[in-house]
Amino acid sequence: MVMVKMVEDGNAPPEVQAVFDEIKAARKSNWINNFWKALAASPQTMKRIWTSVKLVMTPGALDALTKEMIYIAVSVTNNCPYCIHSHTAAARAKGMTDEMYHELLAVVGLANETNRLANGYQIPIDEEFIPFK
Amino acid sequence: MVMVKMVEDGNAPPEVQAVFDEIKAARKSNWINNFWKALAASPQTMKRIWTSVKLVMTPGALDALTKEMIYIAVSVTNNCPYCIHSHTAAARAKGMTDEMYHELLAVVGLANETNRLANGYQIPIDEEFIPFK
Amino acid sequence: MVMVKMVEDGNAPPEVQAVFDEIKAARKSNWINNFWKALAASPQTMKRIWTSVKLVMTPGALDALTKEMIYIAVSVTNNCPYCIHSHTAAARAKGMTDEMYHELLAVVGLANETNRLANGYQIPIDEEFIPFK
Amino acid sequence: MVMVKMVEDGNAPPEVQAVFDEIKAARKSNWINNFWKALAASPQTMKRIWTSVKLVMTPGALDALTKEMIYIAVSVTNNCPYCIHSHTAAARAKGMTDEMYHELLAVVGLANETNRLANGYQIPIDEEFIPFK
Amino acid sequence: MVMVKMVEDGNAPPEVQAVFDEIKAARKSNWINNFWKALAASPQTMKRIWTSVKLVMTPGALDALTKEMIYIAVSVTNNCPYCIHSHTAAARAKGMTDEMYHELLAVVGLANETNRLANGYQIPIDEEFIPFK
Amino acid sequence: MVMVKMVEDGNAPPEVQAVFDEIKAARKSNWINNFWKALAASPQTMKRIWTSVKLVMTPGALDALTKEMIYIAVSVTNNCPYCIHSHTAAARAKGMTDEMYHELLAVVGLANETNRLANGYQIPIDEEFIPFK
Repeated sequence: MVMVKMVEDGNAPPEVQAVFDEIKAARKSNWINNFWKALAASPQTMKRIWTSVKLVMTPGALDALTKEMIYIAVSVTNNCPYCIHSHTAAARAKGMTDEMYHELLAVVGLANETNRLANGYQIPIDEEFIPFK
Repeated sequence: MVMVKMVEDGNAPPEVQAVFDEIKAARKSNWINNFWKALAASPQTMKRIWTSVKLVMTPGALDALTKEMIYIAVSVTNNCPYCIHSHTAAARAKGMTDEMYHELLAVVGLANETNRLANGYQIPIDEEFIPFK
Repeated sequence: MVMVKMVEDGNAPPEVQAVFDEIKAARKSNWINNFWKALAASPQTMKRIWTSVKLVMTPGALDALTKEMIYIAVSVTNNCPYCIHSHTAAARAKGMTDEMYHELLAVVGLANETNRLANGYQIPIDEEFIPFK
Repeated sequence: MVMVKMVEDGNAPPEVQAVFDEIKAARKSNWINNFWKALAASPQTMKRIWTSVKLVMTPGALDALTKEMIYIAVSVTNNCPYCIHSHTAAARAKGMTDEMYHELLAVVGLANETNRLANGYQIPIDEEFIPFK
Repeated sequence: MVMVKMVEDGNAPPEVQAVFDEIKAARKSNWINNFWKALAASPQTMKRIWTSVKLVMTPGALDALTKEMIYIAVSVTNNCPYCIHSHTAAARAKGMTDEMYHELLAVVGLANETNRLANGYQIPIDEEFIPFK
Repeated sequence: MVMVKMVEDGNAPPEVQAVFDEIKAARKSNWINNFWKALAASPQTMKRIWTSVKLVMTPGALDALTKEMIYIAVSVTNNCPYCIHSHTAAARAKGMTDEMYHELLAVVGLANETNRLANGYQIPIDEEFIPFK
């Protein structure tokens, strides 16, 4: 029940096709997933998000797999089914094992519980946790 | 503006003091942070959450620092100021550098953006991302 | 997988049918969408929400289309698929073009990103932004 | 209780100062708000977000004020106090009157109410609202 | 850091004062809390919300205290500090004991944890839970 | 589109089967719902959550039905379709009538509306609501 007409790889205006080609080259794959086909309905958004993804998701001080697991943590907390599926697949492709996956979800679940206890009891932040005073 | 009377370490009923002592031993520290002093107003909740924290946050397939960073990702997405402060401090104590921290927040921010684009456009989940059919 | 038995237009108790008739008259349409058929299971809720919708969504200082786009911004942020679909359709009926729609979603996405950066870094509110002191 | 050491305008590394200068020029103002001083702790994030803000918030099919009001709708829904303050100030500077502001918040409140009713009753999306089948 | 100039009881325009008077009569109290003083900046919103509060919060199939505890559950999950404080005070005034309060927060915390596990694992809804097919 | 291979009752490793058996005994039912079959993919998480559910959901100062309705309030606010379905079924099994159900959803909807008004206007917490100073 997608809200836009998705643009197909191979049948796209040049500025969109250029991003499709770059995505495929970066991923060493011939497949474009629906997220990019849908964003392609707005070439400016598609190009901007792809630029951000390249900058943010490239391995740096955090490796690529850690970044994917952080992405999953956010996507589960927000309840974004597309994002849960696509980033879980990406994390598995980067080496996430079953054990890592279950530990990830256990942390996400527990953090959501304690977040509500901390906010519910309106617990004051300890002086010791304040980095700049 | 805490909603409960916090229980102080050293001045607690025995079942609460036992958890305080266990927390201090586990952390090799003499300090109890406000989260546990507030939960102590309900000894059952305090004991249950401490049991969960021990089980979930112990290093396993994921190391302790990765778990703390996942906790931060959830806490930022939920906007729990106490949790943001306490788990950022914990992650720094476990070795999170400035570079790692900024990359973590960049992933959290971007994931929140693309989560809303995926949900906003109601992008259908690709067959390729479905693990069990 | 609706949780209530929806009430059909033309086959409703009088107090519900009166609201159906008013909705159709207000919209100059013979069609009742599922939201109202489901709320009709609780006539008090149905009447209360219809009263609120009339008061809030009527053009005033903001025109009807701007109000629909604000509605979409909230619905995407909350991930309410029904609301995303119904208010996107309503906004299109009121004149939202493709260009407006994509700019709307781009703002929603970016706002979600910067919201998490502002909360994640716990950025203090500038004095200059505080309207009453 | 900011989590990073904010970078001051006039006392910043060259790549950060260049963004400060661009922000001031774009806004025809000599003032930099805390959001940018905090992001400056991560020059890559600062530059990336500023690039996105320029692309997304520039008037296009939607005028600048409508975009600010959509930003407020998201920020209120996410409960980001910094963003609520800064974008309300920005919207007022762009011409939002008291009447517009109160209507905006009324729509945001009502949308949050009906979002929960739609999700709570799990109301099925009407065929008529599905744009692509 | 309130965004509007609050209207004081006794110093209000007639349509606002009438609502203040009705609130005080309904509560058998001479005190108006900040929520209503702030909403009074928009008399239409103030009147509409007060009408809704009267309809929804009046004891019916659910007693007044149960309704307040449901309000707290929502307010904690949304992280609305004002609402957490005001509805916790209201629930205590209606008879919520310490034991009830701690059990309430324990359910809220656990529900937030299992919500994320259910969404994270994308668990399919059992046929047995679907009320209308 | 579940993310894990669900474990079937009667075909489970001993430590998982023991929890299945305990769940069935506690519920006096021979049926295991998908939530537990999915959690069973991680026996540690399954056992930990079942222990928490027993502790938290047992009638105490709050009766079992009130606890289920609080669970629904959280699940609707978070938009967890699985949880909405399973806890609505559980509440109905424990005696929730149609009237109670509609009042519950009305409170949940209204609380979400006023939460956003309180946060949107950044209404300051009244001194009178602060329990410990």
